[in-house]
Formats: sequence, structure tokens, C-alpha cells
Amino acid sequence: MSYRKGYLYEWKLTHELAKKGFMVVRTPRSGRIGLPSPDIIALKNGKIFVIEAKAREEAFKIEEEQLNELKQWQSNGASAYIAWKISREGWKFLKLEDVIKNNGNIGKKFAAEKGFGIEFFDDI
Amino acid sequence: MSYRKGYLYEWKLTHELAKKGFMVVRTPRSGRIGLPSPDIIALKNGKIFVIEAKAREEAFKIEEEQLNELKQWQSNGASAYIAWKISREGWKFLKLEDVIKNNGNIGKKFAAEKGFGIEFFDDI
Repeated sequence: MSYRKGYLYEWKLTHELAKKGFMVVRTPRSGRIGLPSPDIIALKNGKIFVIEAKAREEAFKIEEEQLNELKQWQSNGASAYIAWKISREGWKFLKLEDVIKNNGNIGKKFAAEKGFGIEFFDDI
Repeated sequence: MSYRKGYLYEWKLTHELAKKGFMVVRTPRSGRIGLPSPDIIALKNGKIFVIEAKAREEAFKIEEEQLNELKQWQSNGASAYIAWKISREGWKFLKLEDVIKNNGNIGKKFAAEKGFGIEFFDDI
């Protein structure tokens, strides 16, 4: 998956959340300033979500450092998720806690068991 | 005030908030994607702040469109502020409501009356 393609998917996800009534911000790489920041921040009805978005063809691993960053956001009141754009399928959202329990490993079986679709955000 | 100088002040403010224990994201211009987004989003202890940062030499006006954007964030649970970096002084933070009541106009008298310093964020 090219950087460009990943960027495009992330852009689409941002707009899908906006359509669902979220206030959304995408933090581009150029905006990273040495502070822990997730790819997407979304706010609705007093609930804040931080999302690390990954477009990957195959199973992958989230590094401990990144998990810890998301944990910091979570301990300040956000709900943290990893969003996996599986090729030719929709996004699967995985709770940070589940990903941590799985040592950062995300594969198709894990995503099928623990993941949920973007419809989840309709009820926020 | 040059764009570069404004950027530098914004960068410093972001880091000051991080030092105060906030999770902070700066949304660079390049990250704007046609969605309403403030310059800075900061989260701590379940409280979310959205900040529009302005480095200006003289009095200025926040356009209605931008005030409305911040209002949208606020109605979803954020506290919205305009931060004015006054030349050779520190930041003055102004509540969105106060700025709206003043029709978006921000000047030195208004800032002296209604504004408060960055110490405010120490108690969050």
C-alpha cells in the first residue's frame, strides 16, 4: 500500500466521520511536532475519539511506542481505536485495549473477532 | 506579523500546553480539508479545548464563519478560545462567548478586560 493510497483512505474516513456529525481533525505527518498525536481526532456529543488509521494489505503490528501514545490520550478522556482499512473491504475498528492485549498484533482473524464497522459511530 | 512568525508562536504554545500535561495536536494549514478545524486541540483530564491562535500586532476581527466553526466544536463538548499573542507580551486567552458578544472584535482594551493568561491551563 503506497503512502498516497493510505493518505486517500484516511482522508475518506475523516469525511465519513464528518458526515456522521463529528467534528474531525486529521493530523498530517507534517503536523507532527515530536508530540504524541493520533492520525484522526473526532468529537461528538462530548465524546472524543482518537484514531490511528492503517491501510495495510496484510497483518501488521502496532509498535509499543504508538500504543503508549494512544494510551496517554485515553487516560486523558479519549477513546482510542486502531482503524484498519483492509483491501477491498471496509474499515475495521479495534479497541486499543484489545490491541494491547494482543501485543499490538493485528491480523484478519483478530479483526474478525474483535473489530467492528464504521456504523458504530452512527450511535454516538 | 509574518506567517512564519505566527507559525513559530503557535508551535511554542502547543509545546507549552504539552508541558502542562495536555495531549495536544496542531492542525497545520496543509491539514485543513474543507472541514472546520481549529489551530490547536488540547485534551486533559477529560476536558477538551479548541484554540484559534492569532499572532497580531494590532486589534483584529475574527470572521463570523470562523466563530461559527468554533461554536460547532463547542456544542459538541469542547471549550473554545481565541488566543492572541500580543507583540512583546504573552498570550491572552479569550472565551468564544465573549468574542461573539463583541462581534468578533478583539482589541487591547477587550483583551485586558476579558482575557486571561496561560496560567489558566495549570488548573485543568
